[in-house]
Amino acid sequence: MECLLNASNPVFGAYAFYGSIVILKMFALALMTSMKRGETGVFANTEDAQFFYTGQEKDKSKRVIFDNSKVERVRRNHLNDLENIPAFLVLGLIYVTIEPTLSTALWHFRIFVISRVLHMIVYQLQFPQPSRGIIFLFGFLANMSMAVQII
Amino acid sequence: MECLLNASNPVFGAYAFYGSIVILKMFALALMTSMKRGETGVFANTEDAQFFYTGQEKDKSKRVIFDNSKVERVRRNHLNDLENIPAFLVLGLIYVTIEPTLSTALWHFRIFVISRVLHMIVYQLQFPQPSRGIIFLFGFLANMSMAVQII
Amino acid sequence: MECLLNASNPVFGAYAFYGSIVILKMFALALMTSMKRGETGVFANTEDAQFFYTGQEKDKSKRVIFDNSKVERVRRNHLNDLENIPAFLVLGLIYVTIEPTLSTALWHFRIFVISRVLHMIVYQLQFPQPSRGIIFLFGFLANMSMAVQII
Repeated sequence: MECLLNASNPVFGAYAFYGSIVILKMFALALMTSMKRGETGVFANTEDAQFFYTGQEKDKSKRVIFDNSKVERVRRNHLNDLENIPAFLVLGLIYVTIEPTLSTALWHFRIFVISRVLHMIVYQLQFPQPSRGIIFLFGFLANMSMAVQII
Repeated sequence: MECLLNASNPVFGAYAFYGSIVILKMFALALMTSMKRGETGVFANTEDAQFFYTGQEKDKSKRVIFDNSKVERVRRNHLNDLENIPAFLVLGLIYVTIEPTLSTALWHFRIFVISRVLHMIVYQLQFPQPSRGIIFLFGFLANMSMAVQII
Repeated sequence: MECLLNASNPVFGAYAFYGSIVILKMFALALMTSMKRGETGVFANTEDAQFFYTGQEKDKSKRVIFDNSKVERVRRNHLNDLENIPAFLVLGLIYVTIEPTLSTALWHFRIFVISRVLHMIVYQLQFPQPSRGIIFLFGFLANMSMAVQII
């Protein structure tokens, strides 16, 4: 049996590259959450507020706040990543084993990754809809297309 | 070295099939969230309410609501998927490499996928407990069984 | 082509072992959520409260509560796992295919897994910061290191 999940298979190489890029993109939202918490002085745990809060409020435990709109926007974006990126990573890996042509595979991987990058930008800059919905749909359809081809 | 993660290995083929099915099932909850938001006119972002809300409320920004019980039920179900399905997808893949018999592997994959499908139905139709708990447990034990065998 | 994702490759064996361990660790938080719900009598669905609540409150539907600090602490910890562990599982798998030395791979896998176990302990015992932040960073950097090497 020929081995497809191997660096010498260019389709797998493309998967490894784009998969890692989109994971780094997801990590960007983890860092952005921390930054927004620092910026707004809004934390999820009392021990975090005790150590990281540097503002004027004397009772630091009052900085444990769960409805700050800036922080929650980043967190919703992050959760949306979790709903889509792990699915892409597994579908993409299985997709490599059904031996698509390199160019077909590249289109799937690129459309998904570009969709997720633009989705983040549009979400965080709060562009009017339906921009985010349409951009989301491209990535979602790339995933659906791989799933249907596998089945 | 023989290659096991390959379409010519029937155990891998079963993994690829059931893995894709359960990802599609997870995507169903993403679509269901959008539908419930449209149906109840409840959104998570002002720009979404501005564009998608078609009801009678004049100040559309008041349609940004985070505690609608119908929408939140779908979202909790989706989060429960995220806690279990990516773990299954990775455990299942590694499980293929320890060369279980096809029938043992099929039982693990089928029990997990059926458990997740029934879990969604029972969750959304709000069946009395302990139905959801028991159904959840089957899928959880399929995952545990694979993890223990791998270790 | 040589096959690297195979039990006879010791780097893959290490991945399979540590990957399964860290999934079991993640599952521990799922069980801990259920236990905390039972202990505090706080549930997310009315049907759960109807069946599982054994306390004094007569109107069991009042036990549907979303802001219990003990339960929410476990859930935040669980969500943090979802943001990091699936990424590790995919990065680790791809990392095996770029043929790192066994010892380099073991360091990456062990640092990540130990970081996540300590992160959970420190989070649940509510240790003062920056302990949790520093422990988190080790696991995060193990992931980043693998991602950069793959790219």
